[in-house]
Amino acid sequence: MQITLPDGSARELASGASGRDLAESISSGLARMALAVEVTPEATPEAPKPAPEVRDLDRPLADGDTVSILTWDSDGGKMAFWHSSAHLMAEALEALYPGIHLGIGPAIDNGFYYDVDLSNTGKDRLTDEDLPAIEAKMKELARGDSRFERREVSKAEAVAYFEEKGDPYKLELLERLEDGEITFYQQGDFVDLCRGPHIPSTKPIKAVKLLSLAGAYWRGDESRPQLTRIYGVSFPKAKQLEEHLERLELAKQRDHRKLGKELELFMFSDKVGPGLPIWLPKGARLRETLVDFLKTEQVARGYEPVITPHIARLDLFRTSGHYPYYSDSQFPPMLEGQKGPALPDGETPEARTHDEASGAATSGDEQGYLLKPMNCPHHTQIYDRKPRSYRDLPVRLAEFGTVYRYEQSGELGGLTRVRGFTQDDAHVFCRPDQVKEEFKAAIDLTMTVLRALDFTDYTAQVSLRDPENTTKYIGDDATWDAAEQAIREAAAEMGLDTVEEEGEAAFYGAKLDFMVKDALGRSWQLGTVQLDYNLPERFDLTYTDENDQRQRPVMIHRAPFGSLERFIGVLLEHTGGNLPLWVAPVQVRILPITDDQNGYAEGVAKELREAGLRVEVDTRSEKTGRKIRDAEVEKVPVMLIVGRKEAEAGTVSVRRHGLGDDSDQGAQSTADLRDALLAEIAASTGRA
Amino acid sequence: MQITLPDGSARELASGASGRDLAESISSGLARMALAVEVTPEATPEAPKPAPEVRDLDRPLADGDTVSILTWDSDGGKMAFWHSSAHLMAEALEALYPGIHLGIGPAIDNGFYYDVDLSNTGKDRLTDEDLPAIEAKMKELARGDSRFERREVSKAEAVAYFEEKGDPYKLELLERLEDGEITFYQQGDFVDLCRGPHIPSTKPIKAVKLLSLAGAYWRGDESRPQLTRIYGVSFPKAKQLEEHLERLELAKQRDHRKLGKELELFMFSDKVGPGLPIWLPKGARLRETLVDFLKTEQVARGYEPVITPHIARLDLFRTSGHYPYYSDSQFPPMLEGQKGPALPDGETPEARTHDEASGAATSGDEQGYLLKPMNCPHHTQIYDRKPRSYRDLPVRLAEFGTVYRYEQSGELGGLTRVRGFTQDDAHVFCRPDQVKEEFKAAIDLTMTVLRALDFTDYTAQVSLRDPENTTKYIGDDATWDAAEQAIREAAAEMGLDTVEEEGEAAFYGAKLDFMVKDALGRSWQLGTVQLDYNLPERFDLTYTDENDQRQRPVMIHRAPFGSLERFIGVLLEHTGGNLPLWVAPVQVRILPITDDQNGYAEGVAKELREAGLRVEVDTRSEKTGRKIRDAEVEKVPVMLIVGRKEAEAGTVSVRRHGLGDDSDQGAQSTADLRDALLAEIAASTGRA
Repeated sequence: MQITLPDGSARELASGASGRDLAESISSGLARMALAVEVTPEATPEAPKPAPEVRDLDRPLADGDTVSILTWDSDGGKMAFWHSSAHLMAEALEALYPGIHLGIGPAIDNGFYYDVDLSNTGKDRLTDEDLPAIEAKMKELARGDSRFERREVSKAEAVAYFEEKGDPYKLELLERLEDGEITFYQQGDFVDLCRGPHIPSTKPIKAVKLLSLAGAYWRGDESRPQLTRIYGVSFPKAKQLEEHLERLELAKQRDHRKLGKELELFMFSDKVGPGLPIWLPKGARLRETLVDFLKTEQVARGYEPVITPHIARLDLFRTSGHYPYYSDSQFPPMLEGQKGPALPDGETPEARTHDEASGAATSGDEQGYLLKPMNCPHHTQIYDRKPRSYRDLPVRLAEFGTVYRYEQSGELGGLTRVRGFTQDDAHVFCRPDQVKEEFKAAIDLTMTVLRALDFTDYTAQVSLRDPENTTKYIGDDATWDAAEQAIREAAAEMGLDTVEEEGEAAFYGAKLDFMVKDALGRSWQLGTVQLDYNLPERFDLTYTDENDQRQRPVMIHRAPFGSLERFIGVLLEHTGGNLPLWVAPVQVRILPITDDQNGYAEGVAKELREAGLRVEVDTRSEKTGRKIRDAEVEKVPVMLIVGRKEAEAGTVSVRRHGLGDDSDQGAQSTADLRDALLAEIAASTGRA
Repeated sequence: MQITLPDGSARELASGASGRDLAESISSGLARMALAVEVTPEATPEAPKPAPEVRDLDRPLADGDTVSILTWDSDGGKMAFWHSSAHLMAEALEALYPGIHLGIGPAIDNGFYYDVDLSNTGKDRLTDEDLPAIEAKMKELARGDSRFERREVSKAEAVAYFEEKGDPYKLELLERLEDGEITFYQQGDFVDLCRGPHIPSTKPIKAVKLLSLAGAYWRGDESRPQLTRIYGVSFPKAKQLEEHLERLELAKQRDHRKLGKELELFMFSDKVGPGLPIWLPKGARLRETLVDFLKTEQVARGYEPVITPHIARLDLFRTSGHYPYYSDSQFPPMLEGQKGPALPDGETPEARTHDEASGAATSGDEQGYLLKPMNCPHHTQIYDRKPRSYRDLPVRLAEFGTVYRYEQSGELGGLTRVRGFTQDDAHVFCRPDQVKEEFKAAIDLTMTVLRALDFTDYTAQVSLRDPENTTKYIGDDATWDAAEQAIREAAAEMGLDTVEEEGEAAFYGAKLDFMVKDALGRSWQLGTVQLDYNLPERFDLTYTDENDQRQRPVMIHRAPFGSLERFIGVLLEHTGGNLPLWVAPVQVRILPITDDQNGYAEGVAKELREAGLRVEVDTRSEKTGRKIRDAEVEKVPVMLIVGRKEAEAGTVSVRRHGLGDDSDQGAQSTADLRDALLAEIAASTGRA
């Protein structure tokens, strides 16, 4: 039979040959490294575009397959490795805790986990102290080099097995499966219900680390039992594990929640509420710097600032469709007549409450208000306040608008998931023929923002209609086709790498999301540009065209930062808190060696402040070494040490944070330093 | 008997002589002009400080009285004149609408009104068309020169009169009065229950204008009948009325609601809700300019910016005391479990609602949230997040914080009374010994703001404890005495004129309010500085003193603008929309004479924009006259007309708005103009 390799070359193999045979036919070294194969069957009239599938190395291949050998260096290889490690952990757990019940145990992005129920084992609960013994058991079992054997079983056989074993979770999983699609995998004495694929044997699993424990509801359902989730990671080599743990430690050091506390940027208060960040002075300054930067860019690009209230009557959100349909993710409405305990005697809130709860629109003032979950409905009111002509478009309304959404409290953490956040929002109301130019402008603005903040590694995901199912989208085919083409062209002309995802568009329009990689290689969705055909329809927005006909404008939502909270969270992790000079809340700290230089230091500070720099003077009666250490801990970018020598010469001794051996930059005149810093800032912000 | 005049001189008059006799004794001219007298009886041991009282001109004086003759030029004279005009209007109304019932009819600041009930007259309701006939009747009756006769009557007599006449409102008023204090005034056939004083006769009422109609509940109680209020004004001379109507027209022209619409600064939307201003691009720019100005001043003065959420858990406001005690003036709380119609099946919101309504504190996340009516409770959380030492104080936290309060909808109008507004708020946490310096700093900042916006006529009201009733205030006598003295000294050292008002302080501390006069002479309460001993107590805020003892800090609330909305409303009325150059949303508009100069105009615009000026170019294909007219209507401070001549010479022809004959400022080079405008702005903002 003939097998095609990824490079297009073909190999003849004996019928029934496996992935391992293919690897051997290439090189014995490759065969030793091989963990699994990715197989794409030959196209047939029935399946013109067969999907690639990762399979066990030892399963037979078929004539016409295109096959790629997966080693540790591939994502598929890693996933098989970690999935097998999850089975290995389950085997170890059964050995250590007989009677344990197993839930599911998948590979994840950075390792694996297994959800287990210890209630039948006599062991109360697992703690971190239990993990080393489990690791040791796993390594012992791995050295036994058990093969991961795949076996197709009938449903009856599978049910019988787990009934005998007494594993309720596996039985529940089996309920949803049908005969003919059930497989077991076995290594040693351990058998699991599993679709695979797995690596050939346990032997390559040389380095194992169990990382943490968490609670997880069975099937994610709060009404079901809570299982114990054990997270782990494994590698073929000890050194790889070591490096991985170092990266984890690095990520922990860069955790923005930790940095936010250390650098005094933001806090949370239980009395104010979870997920509601309070910006401390340095964080507020950082935020304002980002806002001012974007405001300036936006003015230059024809955006007009607006400011709208944080609430509106329910009617606005009934028209927009946000109420009552998204009630679960919103704060509860403020219902009239429900003033808490201070109601007039004898008056009760029931009647009105129930009117409201029925969702019926009530008229007049007494209907209730909602915290805004988005700024767009308010902005439609500004567009709609006067007649618009085709010549007036595009109208670009920009607002740094704080919105509130009710995330479940389990999901809250730091700045990346909050209940109140400020969008750098703008809505562009334009003609259909202006979509491409507006997308280009929004892409350019987002790239300007990312560049200024040293994010250099990003692509864009373009979410398009599902071409198989066009009826679920608002707007006609021609409009969508033109818009999707406009977005593609806009991205291409801006030199932006894109990945297209069919079927990922919202029902109201296509969109483009920036996927940004941080310094640790993690990917974040940040800026976004979205088309919207829905709100102009719901609010009946119009303009008159050249022929005096009423036409529907298109609305574009765009936010280069996305949300300030989330963006700052990512920025902190990306930079490890070593913020670029231009955004640092304190840019320069002056450290007088003795109190005698305090006056000189204040003079230098004044000169730098007049140039617009954010400067502090450390006048504490501390040793210079201590002052430097404190400034380094606070990650102040520029330290100026001034002693008698500097005061006499009218200079400053410059030390830069985070430059290691290059920290000491020697003495400079204040004017030279000022000019150098301003030039550095101008270079970062593109405002030379 | 002996009468003392205001200048201290004495006159001997026959016993029983009246104010008119006194006036005659001075000059017959004065007697002709006299409308009433202000009498201060001689001090006695029982009444050591007798209060002055305005009385009818013809009532007898007593030996030892100090008497001042009141003419039209005095406030007391005007009030008597307008009060008498109200009686005259009532007489006219009875003549025109027999059976009319009368409520009350006082003089007010700028005229008079009478509340009347027409339900008994057969006339449905009054409209503006009815007013001229009433005016004509008043003038006809006035020419009859009826005297206003004062008569003391017994309660029985008074009741009998109004029972016979059938006037229910007067009878209700009589209920509260006692025998011996009841007087009637009569002119012609018209008799009114009235305390007086009045002018001698109807003759001086030469010029009358009835201005408007409004509805007014009897005794201000919504459950009582709604009467018709007729507003009017009257003068001794037709010319005075004419001038007054001109001033009214001027005020109408300067009405900030009208200007806000014309200049496209802000709007309201019924879907968003009454009292919730939406800032349009030009208004947002104006707001941001004020905010940026104050931010810069605050940074220089040691304030630290913070940003806090617009909501908090009810718990925060239970601790602060804002909930449930001020529920009537707040938006209703957002109660958990009350998600409107999207509740899970079978779940009803009642249980929780009623828990909350009882005001009992519930624990955990599920308790409910409130829109913040003030920023202070949030700021206490920032102060309280770490231990503070006496050396760390003062801590000055500043936020442009948007707060929400539920004003009754009848009270809403434009920007001066709103349901959502942004305070230029700051809270200073300081030691008691720092109060004076902090007040001085806050006064200085407020004066800086007022100066920059051309408010030159202001005083401060200092609200102090009621010394007779010190138990209702929080904090001990020594603390209050020291604080009040500190405020007095702070104001004096800053050269600020103050009026002290005993008993006007809040229970939690003394305060100083700026009372600012606008260009039409109307007085507005703007900036405020307030002491607070209450919140530090309720939130148990502390610092450690030199002896490591826990001490309570004082909190100072201060807001130089007060609220941005209200301040901008007053600023618009003060300036008539002719905003100072530095705050104008569009500072410069360039008007090319033909399309050929559009390129040159854009070049000039770029040069000015780079200097930080807000510049527009009017590239419409309109005549220059039209472009100038439009710019004048929009009150753009600087117009630059550029034709071929200017383009060739590299100059601009400068026209200034609002300078009348001096509008045309001739040709200048762009650089000279730029420097002149920057100098003008620097002079206004004090940042030369």
